[in-house]
Amino acid sequence: MKPWLPEHITLASGAGGRAMRHLVEHVFLQDAPEVADGDVGPLAMDDGAALRIGERWLVLTTDSYVVKPLFFPGGDIGRLAICGTVNDLAMMGATEVVGLTCGVIVEEGFARADLERIQASMRAACTQAGVRVVTGDTKVMARGELDGLVLNTAGAALTDRVVRDNGLQPGDKLLLSGTVGEHGMAIAAARSGMEFQGDLRSDVAPLGSLVRALLAAGGADVVALKDPTRGGIASAVHEMAQKSGVGVVLDGPALPMLPAVRAMAELLGIDPLHVANEGKALIGVRPWAAHKVLEALREHPQGRDAAIIGTAHAEHVGQVILDTGLGRRLLREPEGEPLPRIC
Amino acid sequence: MKPWLPEHITLASGAGGRAMRHLVEHVFLQDAPEVADGDVGPLAMDDGAALRIGERWLVLTTDSYVVKPLFFPGGDIGRLAICGTVNDLAMMGATEVVGLTCGVIVEEGFARADLERIQASMRAACTQAGVRVVTGDTKVMARGELDGLVLNTAGAALTDRVVRDNGLQPGDKLLLSGTVGEHGMAIAAARSGMEFQGDLRSDVAPLGSLVRALLAAGGADVVALKDPTRGGIASAVHEMAQKSGVGVVLDGPALPMLPAVRAMAELLGIDPLHVANEGKALIGVRPWAAHKVLEALREHPQGRDAAIIGTAHAEHVGQVILDTGLGRRLLREPEGEPLPRIC
Repeated sequence: MKPWLPEHITLASGAGGRAMRHLVEHVFLQDAPEVADGDVGPLAMDDGAALRIGERWLVLTTDSYVVKPLFFPGGDIGRLAICGTVNDLAMMGATEVVGLTCGVIVEEGFARADLERIQASMRAACTQAGVRVVTGDTKVMARGELDGLVLNTAGAALTDRVVRDNGLQPGDKLLLSGTVGEHGMAIAAARSGMEFQGDLRSDVAPLGSLVRALLAAGGADVVALKDPTRGGIASAVHEMAQKSGVGVVLDGPALPMLPAVRAMAELLGIDPLHVANEGKALIGVRPWAAHKVLEALREHPQGRDAAIIGTAHAEHVGQVILDTGLGRRLLREPEGEPLPRIC
Repeated sequence: MKPWLPEHITLASGAGGRAMRHLVEHVFLQDAPEVADGDVGPLAMDDGAALRIGERWLVLTTDSYVVKPLFFPGGDIGRLAICGTVNDLAMMGATEVVGLTCGVIVEEGFARADLERIQASMRAACTQAGVRVVTGDTKVMARGELDGLVLNTAGAALTDRVVRDNGLQPGDKLLLSGTVGEHGMAIAAARSGMEFQGDLRSDVAPLGSLVRALLAAGGADVVALKDPTRGGIASAVHEMAQKSGVGVVLDGPALPMLPAVRAMAELLGIDPLHVANEGKALIGVRPWAAHKVLEALREHPQGRDAAIIGTAHAEHVGQVILDTGLGRRLLREPEGEPLPRIC
């Protein structure tokens, strides 16, 4: 059934939740191409596409970045653009990155010093991630036609095995590689002009090395990967549940969260489960391997706060239930990220 | 020597000419990564990157599209985004396209009907080119933060042989696959609001099939490929001459041009050699194979107007000389495309 679609694009259309999914499904995926058996194409709406080349898969992914402000506590649009694309590749199990591309669109009058700062940040993020931007493109729009600068990165990586976001079966454990909500809350705080952000910083980081470590530990028992970006944990777990045909019960008290995030969330009235993370992975693991994978995560510098946060069930298919410790409630699929231009 | 760079980005910084080259060289390519011998990386500033995978090369390319107006005689931004990326791949000799990615950034309030029209146009261009968009991304910016809609496409293709833009040697012939200047002049005419555009239409078209045909005919004697987009023939031939270390003499009377382009160029005072083409290829060919390649081009529906337009020389290295039939003059490297947002 075709859902109601607005005649004009709204901010929610790009916010990573239900509204965006409907737009993508009913506009961008009209007559979308089929791909070969075993390949992952656009209809899968996964973090990227996977196409067989010989004995392996080439994974392709792309994201545009419109984050506001361009520089924020813990990072900037350049670091975000590198990490976002590296992470989308990693979330398909593809950590052998062939190369990234980068498209820059900038407003006339933009300070060259800021461009150089963003460029240096991209270069540093590439070094940290062990990847390269191999080709790029520059466009300029006139003053007033674009708010500053936007970036697009695409990436190509090879893998012997594609990990999807739809592989959960009843009984599987859901792991999270670290604390929840820093990127979204840091942006929200920066935008609200709050001076007392304290140690609230975006978690933006490349996850290739972490994913290599967890795949080395869990092998084929790692059955699903997804990074909870726009729309946060709530959107990402809903997507995994719906695509896998399971229900997921989240163990609320087990969700790792920094006190600064909790405090800012209460102050701003924003649910930290609804905001973007930019350096975290959700990992679906067969029950018998969950502790082994958790251990591997915790031994990794980026996974010290990792936790088992949920379990897949045969009931409540497509739904996410939050066990708060005091009771259970349905966690609704968000319409979208509460803040526009979060990434 | 570091050239003078403006403190703030100007429209010329994105116009495909000398100003853009300086910005890219001195900002984006600072500490750019080296690539393996035989690979093509960012420092080559070619139409894309080529990275060895086993016995073959994976070619990656990206472009953002900011054309204004979004719909123009002969095409629209969607068709442009597909053809532009397919053509950049083809200009590296890579016509076996694995897949394209597409990032859409749209302004709040944009009409869904226009989005659907652009989407349908992309789909049709993909069908014509025999390629697929395999993954995408959608972002929305608030009203006033972006002028309508911009697109980014990236592409990945495989090839056994990479064709560069720097392969010209003295004596080599330069071929052009068809008439000059339609895209740029059609946009200029549309933007000036001229009603009597007549048959002036953008030439935007995918060139994969044409490139396959010319490579089949010319093989290793095809030594250079480049599509004369932003900055037109003048920019593209300068780049080929500079990178190849040759001078190029262009045979002015041999340059194929539609009367409508000539008329509009005179009316608007724009040099048709300086404006973008979006469905044409410049082809460097060893002298003994030039006629064979020309014949193959002319047998192709997209190459009926192909011509031998120039010759590479050992003199005037890096320069382009236009032989008008009445005399010779230096064709200057344009600062950039005369019109912003041409593609």
